[in-house]
Amino acid sequence: MSSSGARVTAVDTHDIRFPTSRELDGSDAMNPDPDYSAAYVVLRTGGDGTTGAPEGHGFAFTIGRGNEVQVAAIEALRPHLLGRPVDELCADPGALARDLTGDSQLRWLGPEKGVMHMAIGAVVNAVWDLAAKRARTPLWRLLADATPEWLVGQVDFRYIADVLTPEDALGLLRRGREGSAERTALLMEHGFPGYTTSPGWLGYSDEKLTRLARRAVADGFTQIKLKVGADLADDVRRCRAARAAVGPDIRIALDANQRWNVDEAVEWTRALAGFDPYWIEEPTSPDDILGHAAVRRAVAPVKVATGEHVQNRIVFKQLLQAGAVDVLQIDAARVGGVNENLAILLLAARFGVPVCPHAGGVGLCELVQHLSMFDYVALSGTTENRVIEYVDHLHEHFLDPVVIREGHYTAPTSPGFSAAMRPGSVAEYGFPDGTFWAADLDRQREEQEERQQRKGRVE
Amino acid sequence: MSSSGARVTAVDTHDIRFPTSRELDGSDAMNPDPDYSAAYVVLRTGGDGTTGAPEGHGFAFTIGRGNEVQVAAIEALRPHLLGRPVDELCADPGALARDLTGDSQLRWLGPEKGVMHMAIGAVVNAVWDLAAKRARTPLWRLLADATPEWLVGQVDFRYIADVLTPEDALGLLRRGREGSAERTALLMEHGFPGYTTSPGWLGYSDEKLTRLARRAVADGFTQIKLKVGADLADDVRRCRAARAAVGPDIRIALDANQRWNVDEAVEWTRALAGFDPYWIEEPTSPDDILGHAAVRRAVAPVKVATGEHVQNRIVFKQLLQAGAVDVLQIDAARVGGVNENLAILLLAARFGVPVCPHAGGVGLCELVQHLSMFDYVALSGTTENRVIEYVDHLHEHFLDPVVIREGHYTAPTSPGFSAAMRPGSVAEYGFPDGTFWAADLDRQREEQEERQQRKGRVE
Repeated sequence: MSSSGARVTAVDTHDIRFPTSRELDGSDAMNPDPDYSAAYVVLRTGGDGTTGAPEGHGFAFTIGRGNEVQVAAIEALRPHLLGRPVDELCADPGALARDLTGDSQLRWLGPEKGVMHMAIGAVVNAVWDLAAKRARTPLWRLLADATPEWLVGQVDFRYIADVLTPEDALGLLRRGREGSAERTALLMEHGFPGYTTSPGWLGYSDEKLTRLARRAVADGFTQIKLKVGADLADDVRRCRAARAAVGPDIRIALDANQRWNVDEAVEWTRALAGFDPYWIEEPTSPDDILGHAAVRRAVAPVKVATGEHVQNRIVFKQLLQAGAVDVLQIDAARVGGVNENLAILLLAARFGVPVCPHAGGVGLCELVQHLSMFDYVALSGTTENRVIEYVDHLHEHFLDPVVIREGHYTAPTSPGFSAAMRPGSVAEYGFPDGTFWAADLDRQREEQEERQQRKGRVE
Repeated sequence: MSSSGARVTAVDTHDIRFPTSRELDGSDAMNPDPDYSAAYVVLRTGGDGTTGAPEGHGFAFTIGRGNEVQVAAIEALRPHLLGRPVDELCADPGALARDLTGDSQLRWLGPEKGVMHMAIGAVVNAVWDLAAKRARTPLWRLLADATPEWLVGQVDFRYIADVLTPEDALGLLRRGREGSAERTALLMEHGFPGYTTSPGWLGYSDEKLTRLARRAVADGFTQIKLKVGADLADDVRRCRAARAAVGPDIRIALDANQRWNVDEAVEWTRALAGFDPYWIEEPTSPDDILGHAAVRRAVAPVKVATGEHVQNRIVFKQLLQAGAVDVLQIDAARVGGVNENLAILLLAARFGVPVCPHAGGVGLCELVQHLSMFDYVALSGTTENRVIEYVDHLHEHFLDPVVIREGHYTAPTSPGFSAAMRPGSVAEYGFPDGTFWAADLDRQREEQEERQQRKGRVE
């Protein structure tokens, strides 16, 4: 890592919103009309006399309204960042993560959950992006090459030490390093397995579902996912169509997006069991650890998966303790950043539960691939039963978009965390003043005026 | 309730901060320097030709930095409120509560936790304040006089129906009504028992602790609370001083404010057990249901209490399912408002666990007394082992401050939820433009200039 006197000189924030609701991309039983959005943060650095100093990029993902609240939360962290020496930040992002979660006044707004915690995640991830850029390496590789001792120092063991001690973590990471050079080579050659949710949005017709499911298989995916939970008869029909489209050997995961109570989850999942679903995802509230455990006991051999809305390592710890999940789904932008996801990956490794990340949204594929690749190379040591979610939209807005080949995520080689958005996209989709939204507002005003004129003529 | 064509005409928000950190009021092991604050919301109504239409008041409590994020979250709810008919809102606040938690885009920011959920609580509570004012009755009485059927309709059973069905709730409320007239009379005469935390802030000297503990007993309190968790030797000394001050018959509760891991909580509590503490509060993360259960098993007969940071009914449900708490502490402004607290009170009644609310902060005593009084009169039917926390600061900023007599909360008689702040306090402590903070900023600037001038003279 280059040494310098550089400091954080600015913390720029952007409210970015994409009008995805107009195509029903991303529609599910709980989220009928999301406008995929990002509260985007850019850490600018300088002051060391160099020009073109690297920037750190991070974001929280939201689905539209309230993205401005998420931006405000990131801005509340600005005083913690401005003026901080970049060398120090990048040498120990965990120190920043602890400072931010430990700010007692801000902590009251969580603690370690919701808007404030996602803001911390955005900022901490931006520091990791900066660190990887300065080290001129992709983040997955920075993590995989780090010493087990340093990685353990990046984890906050508060509230999880009853299940995972620093010594436990060190043992897991040392064991994980064995054979990592071979796995790095395999990863560079073959990539990391993905699965696709693109066929399964609830707003799609059966015809579109069938067409996209067939294309997914042709593209090399071995698992697809369907959204379920709005109407049982519809779900039966859609599952039948999907199974017919992909044949018996492709895994079909189901995702209820928290739609059900415990009893409903059990009944509904059993009603779809004939289509051989691989997992049922988010069958109920992400807060309901004991509920997930009850569902899992009742629907086996269908597996239970959850995590995209799990707020922090403490709830993940309990999902594992309670035997509530077969598949643990991390999200790169929901918890307190890379550091907390390290803790969660270590907890999963401790319990031997496979991690299959949540992705999609805005840039979540770009981020989370790094975490799974680290997990494979230097912790779990396997890709067996491990797949990263893939959704094929909005990648064009990123400078280093994911590259999918034969159903696999190609290992990123550019330095950083793949988090930087194209400047043109920021200018176009900034809300409400970006060129897209400004034009949209003009159009809406014109339509309203026309309606009023027409109304006037009728009267 | 008066019928009218009135609608919500404005949703005013205020960022109110009190400089409590300067006196170490409110200091504990996790929160060394809180500036007690409120994101305050006023629903203005009108449009029905009447003047002086009632307002609805509500707030989220925070401890300083980030209060502006909380205000932004309340503002994100404005479109859900503007123009809504007041009659409809007040006839069914539960419909609004469901609309707000069900807004899928805003839901992504939680779901049902943190900043966004507290914002919903503030707004929903403001509607209850408005409803009680229009009914010309204090909120506790509006609730206690409501039919069990209507109250059940105010509860969102999603994610708790595996433990509490609407039928269960109806049964509990019908049983709770038996003898409610007698209990109302008793409540009006004697009030509801309180306990005081005023002696026990961590920043206070032993002398101040002793003096305030003796005064608490003289004032009629039968329970006090001490903050613990920063230093064990200090805690031993402070517990000894407190026990010496109050004698053997006064209950001493301890509050660790989430300071410990599970193992530390057990060891530390056992080390203080000789001083006969009544409960240990927030021994670890409020998210750690299984951790609380483990602590409870290990420290009995010392009781385990938690709840002020418990995010929603789903986590409360599990704390009860797991046998993790002896005492359940609701907070009036942390969850989604009166409706969710109704659900939580019903869950507690279902499990026979006493509710001892968290209060203090800004206006939390004013709000939560109504919930305990309803619980006593029309649900649990008893005050045995039930006490409301009392802290004697900041009440002067409210139009209907709590009245404590002989260690008891006097039943409010003014219409509403006791949530309205004095206009003068809003003008003085609005941040950063209120008279107090503007003057404070001027003073800081002057001091800085003086320092620079002095520095200039030395050089």
